[in-house]
Order: sequence, then structure tokens, then C-alpha cells
Amino acid sequence: MIRPADLIQRKRDGEELGDDELAELILGYARGEVPDYQLAAFCMAVYFRGLSPRETFVLTDAMIRSGETIDLGAALGRKVVDKHSTGGVGDKTSLAVAPIVAACGVPLGKMSGRGLGHTGGTLDKLESIPGYRTELTLDEFVAQVRDVGCAIIGQTGDLVPADKLLYGLRDVTATVDQRSLIAASIMSKKLAAGAQAIVLDVKVGDGAFMRTLAEARALSETMISLGREAGREVVCLLTDMDQPLGAAVGNSLEVREALDTVRGRGPADFTELVLDACGKLLALSDLGVDEAEGRRRAETAVQDGSAEMTWRRWLEAQGGTADEAALPVAPVVREVAAPHAGHVTALSAIAVGNAAMQLGAGRRTKSDAVDHAVGIVCHAKRGAEVAKGDVLAHVHARTAEAAEQAVAGILAAYTIGDEAPSVRGVLLEVVD
Amino acid sequence: MIRPADLIQRKRDGEELGDDELAELILGYARGEVPDYQLAAFCMAVYFRGLSPRETFVLTDAMIRSGETIDLGAALGRKVVDKHSTGGVGDKTSLAVAPIVAACGVPLGKMSGRGLGHTGGTLDKLESIPGYRTELTLDEFVAQVRDVGCAIIGQTGDLVPADKLLYGLRDVTATVDQRSLIAASIMSKKLAAGAQAIVLDVKVGDGAFMRTLAEARALSETMISLGREAGREVVCLLTDMDQPLGAAVGNSLEVREALDTVRGRGPADFTELVLDACGKLLALSDLGVDEAEGRRRAETAVQDGSAEMTWRRWLEAQGGTADEAALPVAPVVREVAAPHAGHVTALSAIAVGNAAMQLGAGRRTKSDAVDHAVGIVCHAKRGAEVAKGDVLAHVHARTAEAAEQAVAGILAAYTIGDEAPSVRGVLLEVVD
Repeated sequence: MIRPADLIQRKRDGEELGDDELAELILGYARGEVPDYQLAAFCMAVYFRGLSPRETFVLTDAMIRSGETIDLGAALGRKVVDKHSTGGVGDKTSLAVAPIVAACGVPLGKMSGRGLGHTGGTLDKLESIPGYRTELTLDEFVAQVRDVGCAIIGQTGDLVPADKLLYGLRDVTATVDQRSLIAASIMSKKLAAGAQAIVLDVKVGDGAFMRTLAEARALSETMISLGREAGREVVCLLTDMDQPLGAAVGNSLEVREALDTVRGRGPADFTELVLDACGKLLALSDLGVDEAEGRRRAETAVQDGSAEMTWRRWLEAQGGTADEAALPVAPVVREVAAPHAGHVTALSAIAVGNAAMQLGAGRRTKSDAVDHAVGIVCHAKRGAEVAKGDVLAHVHARTAEAAEQAVAGILAAYTIGDEAPSVRGVLLEVVD
Repeated sequence: MIRPADLIQRKRDGEELGDDELAELILGYARGEVPDYQLAAFCMAVYFRGLSPRETFVLTDAMIRSGETIDLGAALGRKVVDKHSTGGVGDKTSLAVAPIVAACGVPLGKMSGRGLGHTGGTLDKLESIPGYRTELTLDEFVAQVRDVGCAIIGQTGDLVPADKLLYGLRDVTATVDQRSLIAASIMSKKLAAGAQAIVLDVKVGDGAFMRTLAEARALSETMISLGREAGREVVCLLTDMDQPLGAAVGNSLEVREALDTVRGRGPADFTELVLDACGKLLALSDLGVDEAEGRRRAETAVQDGSAEMTWRRWLEAQGGTADEAALPVAPVVREVAAPHAGHVTALSAIAVGNAAMQLGAGRRTKSDAVDHAVGIVCHAKRGAEVAKGDVLAHVHARTAEAAEQAVAGILAAYTIGDEAPSVRGVLLEVVD
């Protein structure tokens, strides 16, 4: 029998734990036999000492073994692909990618989390659509992916329950931002859900967990190793999160922007990332196309309306309305005007995210409710040239008071200088 | 309102916390508002980052403020002294010191803990005396110290409840051995109990928390500072715990040895430490004597039988029997014989402690029961010259099987070499 206190002490002292010891600690925790406080101390020891590649693999594997797994590929008789993002401000990529990829004939069934942070997670965004059911049975999930081509549902409690418990604990014990723990959390969910090929969008910048390219690369390599050890293909896209992605930040605002993008009318930076991700996913699929051809097919699906058609069928299949007019709208809308002329040299993602959270778009604690209507739309992004008084952004708020506060926050998020900044795309680097 | 997760994160990142923040974290924990898992993560962050002298003081003060305090000095109209040990194998010093000091006319009222470790704590030792009541009301406690001169009782839950909670948590989360946390735990209890002068016995060696003199010095300095800030006099005796203290290890065996020492027939090393501690305590008392005179008075109390008389009055006042024959005796006694001739160059305290714990003299977990009868008596200590077959020690066990296992453990604890080791006393250094 393992003694959790001994394992904590050995990790605290920098030792590598044996496979069975570490697995038993995690599985014992999932069974409720090892208490929260011992895992909390363990996670903090891991924060300071790290986990070896072997330990990271064993942790991931134990989290998967803590619950059920599904094999969507076997259920569909197809190679199944999946896409995941480490999360950032204005990141609604999955919402646009799923119907485009499905329209190209590649099934995509995704389980998403609820957000804890600046803005809602993918599930919160989808829940701003009246009627949308985030909870399907596994049978319903498989049937929808087969019939419609895509489905996005909530993480079911049956899959990787250890991760659900551990993430909740890390969140309140300042042990979230540790590379091995992040990698194990993400990859356990992806591997348990059974996709054979996975595209990971690793955000880098002030609005992301990974602040530097070096950190993002290290996390990517860890996740790729975990995928390889489990026999899956993994590609990481390292993408810019120094400024929000696209224009919209806030749940229903982001749903609108995703639909605009599926129709070919989305913001340039967001469209670029969506098409990059679709190209990668189609190249990894069983279509037998390369990335360039995958991207062309994705563009075609957007242009010929088949992606929008799939969007409608998807939402309706999951109980939601595809009627844009039914999305919640905030009662107060305020302009953020440029205080002087110049070039937007920076738009802080974290500052925009915080302003959105203040408006009610995100959760400060797990029990907070999310206001689906509120948020910010940033029309001017890095590199834009503006005249004094130009509209930089719109704030969508519940009250005039909240709007005023957000306007001040967004103004502070913008840096407007004399010189045009150097231009860079959203996609910074690919690690595979 | 403080957010515990923020404080954990700031400590994790090496920041010094504000007085109110840290105090509120500890007091909130004591009130049950901050959960165990957050304090566990906090303690592990403290393990890696440490606490500043200011934070250590604030922690100590908050633990004191979590409960009641008593002022034994005011109740007695005397300057009150106290004595505490950081704990080691065979450490029954308080049992001998209390009646000797009391016999010299200096009141000593002590609250002790139950042991978790190799051997029982002072309370476990006293509980091997049939009838001894470790729980007195505060009024009974004060009255006994006034009338008999000494009393030793259990820590009441009303004093420093935060320490009681925190120590229990640290014990199962591998966060016990951190200097500031140890110092705050010890000093909060001593300060809350109201002694004006405190002698601390800081054990150094393989059977103690502090493995090196440098660590013991650092802990001593931290505790002395905490005492000074609270306006108390504190002296630290740094004493040897590379080998067990005295000969007896195990609860009733140690009570017998303490009584032998009070009568002037105890082992040399233990007697030396007891008289050193008594000399310091009398010098700090309101008797107005120096240390040399204090030590002489202690020796006299031992020689003239007044210390033994106080021992009897003390035990009987507290409900126990002073009849040695009533102490529990183990059914199986086995000799440990020297495997070859030579000099005892080492007798590992931790190895003897572990053998005693295996026999049942100590607790592995909080819920373990202690067997008061079992233990080990080590007749040959470091420096002894032995012939092959000489009795090194006796094992007192519940079963023959347990005895055999302990004999092997004790044999392994002895190192017998050709050369006599250099001689050193129990008292290594004084820090004041």
C-alpha cells in the first residue's frame, strides 16, 4: 500500500516516483481514498520540482484509467481528428473549425470544457445559443457526428474524472501553471476521447498561460511526446495571444463572429487561423490530401455555403437555434474612440480579457454565472492606422456603469503610437 | 476579503505576505473558512520559499490569537519558567526536570503533546502510569502547580487551535520539516501558555528533525527572536541526538529511567542533560541564583530525596500511582549480545527509534494505539568497550516474533569498531 505522505515527500525532495506509486496516488485520489489536501501538497511539490517525461506519461495514463474511454473512430469506422486550444481571449476557433471540417467530409466530435478565466470556454459560448444542449449521451454524440459530421458537447463525468477533480483543485491552490500538469490535463482528455490525430492550438502571449515562445515550445513537445507514446499523431500550432483573437470577446458576440467566419466574412486574423487549423486537420484525416489541398477545400466549403449549411444542421441537431437574431443582446452599447491619431502598436489581450470578465463574460470563481450577452468587439487591431475619434471598439454591457468602466479598461488596453508596428501573422510556429 | 489562492500564488512566487493577509489566512483556517487543501498547498509553497522573520512572527501571533491564552505567572504571582524539547529518541527530560525544579522552589506547569514518530511523546509516557490524568481543567492545573510545584498536562484544545490543525495537516503532507513552521508551532504553544522564561532543548542528529548543528542553530535563532518579540527570555540547548538519550526507549521504560534519575541513579548522559536544563531554568527563575548555583541546588534536590518526594506528590496529585511496580511490563524480554569485541563507535538514534516503533512504542499514524510496556534499553552507548557476547541492550516486546525482529534492528543500529571514538557530551552548544 502506498503512503501518500511518503510520495509527497519524495517528490518534494526531487525524486522520480515509480510508475505504480504515481498511478496509485492518482487513482486513489479519483476513488476518494487520497484526500484533496494531500494532492494539493503534491501538486505544489510538482510545481517546484517538475515531473520527468516518464512521470508525465504515467500521470496522463492514470487519469485516463480513472474513468471510461471512448473510441469514436471505431464507432464511425473512420479516422477521427480532434482540435484543442490552450485557451485565450476571443478564442472561438473550434466553433468555426468544426462545421468547416465536417463540410469537407471529415467527422469532428469534440468534448469541451467550461471556462474559468477572462472569458467563457467553448461550452459557455455554445450555451449562449438558445436551446443548445451541451449534454448528449455518448450514443447521441456518436450518432450526431455520423449524421451531421460534427458535435461539440461538455466533458462527461465518465471520462477522466481524475482530471476533473485535479483541475478543480489546482485552480484554487495556485498550481495550474505547471507544464507537465497542463500537458497531462489536456492530453488525458484528448486521448480518452479517442481521436487518432490531434491539432493543438498553443496560445502564446500576455493573454495565455504560456507567456513566451520557449514555454509554448516546451509544452508542445511534452504534449507531442504524450501523444506519440499513445500512438496518436499530434501537431501543435503556436499562435499569438498578445492581442485578442479576431474582434469579438464575449460569448454570444463570439458565436456571431464564428458564424461570420464560416460564411467567409470573419476578421482577417481569425479567418487565417481557422483555415490553417482546417488545413492541418484535413491533412491528418483519412481524405488523403496534403495541407495545401486541405486548406483549399476548407476555403471552398466556406465560399460555396456548405460550411454554413453544416453549421445550421449542427446547431439544430443539438437542439439550438440557427437564427442569429435569437442570440442574446446586451442592452447598453458604448463606443471606444481613439484618443489621438496614430498606429495601434499593441492591444493587450489580458487587459481586454479582464475588461470582459468585469462585464460578466467570464467567471472569477467556479460558482459565478456567465452573462452571455456582454463583451467587447475590437475593430482596430495591432497595425491599424486610426484617426482621432475613430471607433476602436464597442463595449456591450448590462448597465451604463459597467460599460463606462469597460470603456476605460479598453482604452488602457490600446497603445497608439506614431510608428507602424512590424506585422506578424497569428500563426507563429508549428511544432510537430 | 482575502483570496487564499492569491496568497498561495504570491508565496509560491517568493513574495512576502502582508501582516493582515497572512494572519487572516491562518485565522480563517482555524475558523474552518479556508479549507485544508489550500493550507496544504500554502505549507508546501512555504517549504520551498520560506517565511521572512516578520512572516514567522505574524504566523506565530495568529496561531496564538486563534484560541485562548493563559497567564500562569499572574495566577501564581510568580515568574514562571517552561521547558520544551524538539523531540528525539529516548527523550524523557521533562519528566525528570519538572519535579527537580519544583523541589528547588520554582513552579513548572507544562503542556505537552502526544508523540507522532518513533516513540511516544511526553503525554504517552505519562499515560503508561496507571491512573495518571493528562486532562485537568485550567483551574486544577493552576492549583496543582501552586500546591505541588509542578504539573504536566495535555495541550488543551482551547490553546492555539490553529497549531493543532496545522500540525495535523503538515504531518500528512510532508511539510513538517520547515524551520519557520517548526519555530512558529513550538513558540505559539509556549507563548500562549504564558511562561516568562523558556529553555528549549533543540535536538541535533539522525534521530531529530534537525540533522546538523547549522540547522539547529538557525531554528534556535528563529525561536529566540519570536520569544524576544513577545518579551520573553529564551535559551536554547543544542543537544546530541545521533544516539538515543539515556538508555531507555519506550514509554513505561522511560518513566522508570526518569524516576531513577530523579533519585540520582540515572544514566550518565541523561543525568548530565537533566542537571544542565535544571541549572538554566533555576538561573532564569525568580530565585536570583546563577546557573552554577542553580545546578548545585538541583543536585542537592536529587541527593536529599526532595526531588523524589516531589515526583511522588506530583503523580499522585494528578491521579497516578507512584508505585513503580504498577507500571506495565512487556511479557517478552530478549538480550542483544555484542557480535564481537570492540568499541561502540555509533548507536543510530533513528534505527533504535524505528525498532521501538515496530515494537509498538510509537505511532505510525494518528489513529495508532501505543503499547506502553514495550521498548528497548540500550546499556552500551557510544564509547563503551564491549567483549564478544556482552549484553548491549534488552528488547521488551509483546511477542517473541516482534522481539526477534527488534533484536536484529538493534544489532544493526550498533557500530562496533576497533578504535575508541572521540568523546563528546550531550550538550553540544548553547544559543541565547
